[in-house]
Amino acid sequence: MTKRVLCARLPRPGHPEPLPETESEHVTRVLRLRDGDVLEALDGQGHAAKVTLRIRGGAPRLEFLESKAAEASGVLPLTLEMAILKAEAMEWVVEKAVELGVRTLVPLITAHTVVQVKNKGPEAFRERWQKIADQSLKQCGRLERLEIQTPIALENWIAQNPGKKDCPRLWCDEAGRGGKQGAVDLAHWLFENGAHLQQCRLLIGPEGGWSDLERQLLESGQEFAPIKVSLGPYVLRGETAALYAVSLVIATLRQI
Amino acid sequence: MTKRVLCARLPRPGHPEPLPETESEHVTRVLRLRDGDVLEALDGQGHAAKVTLRIRGGAPRLEFLESKAAEASGVLPLTLEMAILKAEAMEWVVEKAVELGVRTLVPLITAHTVVQVKNKGPEAFRERWQKIADQSLKQCGRLERLEIQTPIALENWIAQNPGKKDCPRLWCDEAGRGGKQGAVDLAHWLFENGAHLQQCRLLIGPEGGWSDLERQLLESGQEFAPIKVSLGPYVLRGETAALYAVSLVIATLRQI
Repeated sequence: MTKRVLCARLPRPGHPEPLPETESEHVTRVLRLRDGDVLEALDGQGHAAKVTLRIRGGAPRLEFLESKAAEASGVLPLTLEMAILKAEAMEWVVEKAVELGVRTLVPLITAHTVVQVKNKGPEAFRERWQKIADQSLKQCGRLERLEIQTPIALENWIAQNPGKKDCPRLWCDEAGRGGKQGAVDLAHWLFENGAHLQQCRLLIGPEGGWSDLERQLLESGQEFAPIKVSLGPYVLRGETAALYAVSLVIATLRQI
Repeated sequence: MTKRVLCARLPRPGHPEPLPETESEHVTRVLRLRDGDVLEALDGQGHAAKVTLRIRGGAPRLEFLESKAAEASGVLPLTLEMAILKAEAMEWVVEKAVELGVRTLVPLITAHTVVQVKNKGPEAFRERWQKIADQSLKQCGRLERLEIQTPIALENWIAQNPGKKDCPRLWCDEAGRGGKQGAVDLAHWLFENGAHLQQCRLLIGPEGGWSDLERQLLESGQEFAPIKVSLGPYVLRGETAALYAVSLVIATLRQI
């Protein structure tokens, strides 16, 4: 397996870059690399280079070895608007969103969100999830970081990011199970509309579902209202809903 | 949320059924139900009834209250042939396979399987996974149990279950990433062939990938050879590969 390290800037010929402190432990303890070992450095923005690790004779640093040919990006214009789930489930969604190719993840605070974001502050949560995303990036060989936004209340997010004509918001609603309440099956919707889909937002609710107020907010007052989609006949856990929906949307965007 | 219990036989009018011992703790401690509470009983074979829990005046039992109208089954003719992953990842696949509608799960022992099945014996593993599957069943409202088979070595399973014309085996191969080695993108294959798909097998490898011998076994000597499919540009973890592929196949089978 290719061993990878993430750094803000890639080294250039004759210009080594210091190994970021956050990566030192990963490189020495997890990857068990030594002075002179070769690995792949990623800048998280789509570029990669083969580099040599230098530990002796100064601070740990990366020396340029050779460029890596640019690869077609596997990251797709999908924003996952995800109600915050309990710790393990949310971390799992973050890890899988990286592997599957989601571009941006927006953690949403909703009426039925159980996790208390206020205690540690939203930025602490963002940092923790970004760290998990970056580990997943190195593991799966993705070149661009998953952008994780700071947790935000649903109503604020929707006010700042209303519906757009060319970027439909697919609203996964457990009350629409089996096509109730005007929901359309997600797979069916993608089959009908997928060929014209340029970019997309997926809105996934918390374990406890959406509140009545949230439904009103989402259903009214927007020029381009969300498209209510159903994910099949069963009650899915939040993380299962996210992964099923992301898989279908990503597969559709990859076909285009 | 509907509270559910799983029992081998549903009670009939005037004929209560004893509450299975394995369900007692779930009912009293997890669901916190008391004598006289109403819940839904499932037989795991597609039938359900509204029942009353009786704890006082004898052994815990379920009394028939009313029948539940038969629902269309959401379980689809998909067999997930899954190389055994490490504990948590495998349990997670089992739970999600129930939610998504997989019919049968076959845990496979492969050359690169890390988990030592021999120590506790394959049947102990099957029982543990079946228990997790049954919990997931009650949570998501699925009526038919996910059938989990006893772990079996890949070569034995393939010998006993060779390729069939009307049930393609989709072989997810990490070496076929991005269409290498003759692999076809799974989403593309489903788009082209999904309309005629009656039933399907999905074969997913372990973290360490397939061995050369296993590749030979899968590529040769069968009248209906597996179809080698790719799951996109990245190296997916075993459980991510399973869930992505299951999602796409299930969505396709549901459209038919």
